Amino acid sequence: MRFGVNHTPSVGWFHSWLDFSPSDTARDMEAIASLGADHVRIFPLWPVVQPNRTLIRPSALADVAAVVDIAGSFGLDVNVDALQGHLSSFDFVPSWLESWHRRNMFTDPDVVASTAAYVRALAAAVADRPNLLGITIGNEVNQFAHAPHPTPHATTAEQGHAWAATMVAAARDGLSSGAAGAAGAAGSVGPEARHGSAPPPAPADGERPGPLVTVAQYDAAWYDDAQPFGPEQAADHGDATVTHSWVFNGSAALHGALGPGSVRHGEYLLQLAAAWNRDAARPNWLQEVGAPTNVVAPADAASFTEQTIRHVLGAQQVLGVTWWCSHDVSRSLADFPELEYDLGLFTNDGRLKPAGEAFAALARSGAAAPTAAPATALVLDDVLPDGSPRYGTRADCAPGGRFAAAWLALAEQSSDGRGPQVVLRSRLADEALVRSRGITSTVDVPDDLDGTALTVAHPATMP
Amino acid sequence: MRFGVNHTPSVGWFHSWLDFSPSDTARDMEAIASLGADHVRIFPLWPVVQPNRTLIRPSALADVAAVVDIAGSFGLDVNVDALQGHLSSFDFVPSWLESWHRRNMFTDPDVVASTAAYVRALAAAVADRPNLLGITIGNEVNQFAHAPHPTPHATTAEQGHAWAATMVAAARDGLSSGAAGAAGAAGSVGPEARHGSAPPPAPADGERPGPLVTVAQYDAAWYDDAQPFGPEQAADHGDATVTHSWVFNGSAALHGALGPGSVRHGEYLLQLAAAWNRDAARPNWLQEVGAPTNVVAPADAASFTEQTIRHVLGAQQVLGVTWWCSHDVSRSLADFPELEYDLGLFTNDGRLKPAGEAFAALARSGAAAPTAAPATALVLDDVLPDGSPRYGTRADCAPGGRFAAAWLALAEQSSDGRGPQVVLRSRLADEALVRSRGITSTVDVPDDLDGTALTVAHPATMP
Repeated sequence: MRFGVNHTPSVGWFHSWLDFSPSDTARDMEAIASLGADHVRIFPLWPVVQPNRTLIRPSALADVAAVVDIAGSFGLDVNVDALQGHLSSFDFVPSWLESWHRRNMFTDPDVVASTAAYVRALAAAVADRPNLLGITIGNEVNQFAHAPHPTPHATTAEQGHAWAATMVAAARDGLSSGAAGAAGAAGSVGPEARHGSAPPPAPADGERPGPLVTVAQYDAAWYDDAQPFGPEQAADHGDATVTHSWVFNGSAALHGALGPGSVRHGEYLLQLAAAWNRDAARPNWLQEVGAPTNVVAPADAASFTEQTIRHVLGAQQVLGVTWWCSHDVSRSLADFPELEYDLGLFTNDGRLKPAGEAFAALARSGAAAPTAAPATALVLDDVLPDGSPRYGTRADCAPGGRFAAAWLALAEQSSDGRGPQVVLRSRLADEALVRSRGITSTVDVPDDLDGTALTVAHPATMP
Repeated sequence: MRFGVNHTPSVGWFHSWLDFSPSDTARDMEAIASLGADHVRIFPLWPVVQPNRTLIRPSALADVAAVVDIAGSFGLDVNVDALQGHLSSFDFVPSWLESWHRRNMFTDPDVVASTAAYVRALAAAVADRPNLLGITIGNEVNQFAHAPHPTPHATTAEQGHAWAATMVAAARDGLSSGAAGAAGAAGSVGPEARHGSAPPPAPADGERPGPLVTVAQYDAAWYDDAQPFGPEQAADHGDATVTHSWVFNGSAALHGALGPGSVRHGEYLLQLAAAWNRDAARPNWLQEVGAPTNVVAPADAASFTEQTIRHVLGAQQVLGVTWWCSHDVSRSLADFPELEYDLGLFTNDGRLKPAGEAFAALARSGAAAPTAAPATALVLDDVLPDGSPRYGTRADCAPGGRFAAAWLALAEQSSDGRGPQVVLRSRLADEALVRSRGITSTVDVPDDLDGTALTVAHPATMP
């Protein structure tokens, strides 16, 4: 079980890539390491690295690599997200994809090829770093694929699969060629396009596993049947299934900031993620979770943090939890949703906040999930009686939905405090899978459950 | 009569602001100076300087000031454009104005105030440079105000006036406070917002005039009655009336690349501009003109350049001509309209092109316009018989329109080769103005003129 923090640079926010400062970065990393965290997640800005479709700036890649090294000097592993894309309500889309040059981000062949070239180059630039945790294709890129984005790039589920597969292959290719390049000739890692898509070599026994490649989505993937990037796009690509937990999605409104439906929301998403994994051993990563002040009062943030992480520890196959975020956004920067100014474990000027103390206590405790997975699984009706996919499955899973309510009731009734696993109706017959997951009993959602599906809100405020 | 060049950086195009290189800049400026040019126009990218609404990067301002100094070291004056905005088909709009944060660029109070703060800070950062030619509010910002922009920020003419007035005041304020700051305490020029709007002090006799403040528009201002930034927005703000001449607007299609309607297009725009000036002494600046290969064959570029500049010399009160552009865009950069790869007076790798030779010959010749203005003026029917503004006036002025055709016929019949001046019907009774302009006879557009207004094309290809 890994504990990490999403790094929000204290000076200049992510605009600091324009004025990269190793010492500012070092100060932030030192603070994060002081929490007992073992990793950070960092976010280059896409238009800064790739301002023209065929210009991937070597100096920008070098800056990213420098951040990885600086973090490493404080004992931190680093996950690098490629396509930002979207951060804290702001979209960062290169000019070659906007206005007169607008083309579909997910399907235009030139755009997809060049986006993959960026992912490949970024991965190659950091591939040889011993503290590289992994590459995420981008932060919640699925936001761009559908409403409520103001100008979505219309995408089908099949196109989403193709795009995710292309980007994961590009990242693996970059990791492979970058590591090979570093082994062969130091300094050869650069922005050149590289080809071939062999995965990185498997580590020998005892070696550190190779960097992870992951696809990150916001929670419409799990809760909105119309979102083209859904559970299968999350679970079928890359090396781990990523979830982002934000209780401003209706959870806190329905359950209260410290109600079970809020402090178990991260745990619940991890169980949903596990249900869609085709391999019981696939890790699940709660890559973002935070205490947003629009629904969690600042006085409750520490308790929310502590309870959220304790519940996460009740899930199985958890790679880790990565808190959002390290530092409050400076009040000198305008136009952020109000909650962004108070999401940090540290204030903008570096004082540890109560939520940071709660996080640090758990990170330092050596807490780990029990070895055995929860034995009971709640059955999610993902198919109709004839076996065809059931539209509405995701709405049922959304906060307040029938399935979510049933899962929460079971979790609260459990003797050990751990929420149940989730198993798909469509996979109940896969005895090997069910057995390998440690599921010994299944429960159906009761017919008489009075769960009212809420419309999941996806406001502009999501980080 | 000044000769200048719009600087298109040979390495990295305008993305080079992300990797500012004094030596690359110096090499370009040396080449430009070798043409006999006396000034350059330079283009910071708005999102790079002001990535957050309340973050104006000091280092970006310092880079702009460094370019001004480097140009000065080669004897070049510099005009700095603030809001890019738009360059060579690419829009550069900060994330705080896009997507979830989209607000009207011209009318939202927070946006306008922050845009003015940027203009002010940029002007202040270069105010004390002895070779500062001026500040232009931005490159063809009126493109964002109306169709055919893909996502226009709807604006009225009155709002256009208010916006232009605010930006001009901000630039003057920055020039004033920056120069004062430099006089008082070296190094004090920074991004801080400054207040007060007193214009810069008038120069004493014999002193160099203070920097110009100008508003630049693309030619829909003159040719499209629906464009909210029109002739009055061009002529009523700042210290000179700016025109940009691009014969892909229909001129070349109608008249041929080397036809009179093409090689006189810059001259014609200067005469249109002069007609709307309320002061006969106001300078007119052909701030952009180039030989676009989509309508001017490369073999004709030199002749087009030479003839265009010779005709410009026939106009009165011409501040100067600033050619677009210094260097071809590198073929290593993608997605530019084809013509952008061949607009330079130099190739991307620095070889002088025939058009560059033609420009240099004229720039070095000491050529100047005759002292006396053309004595004849063609009357532009800008009002209806009842004195109210006439919608359609601008369409008449567009290439192929009745007025344009009549002007061209008079120009070609003139004994000295100089096209006529233009006088507005609405101002014919202003005898002092007509006299001060040197107009001694007027001609009406003939009733039997068979001019067919073309729809002016404003393709994504305009630089």
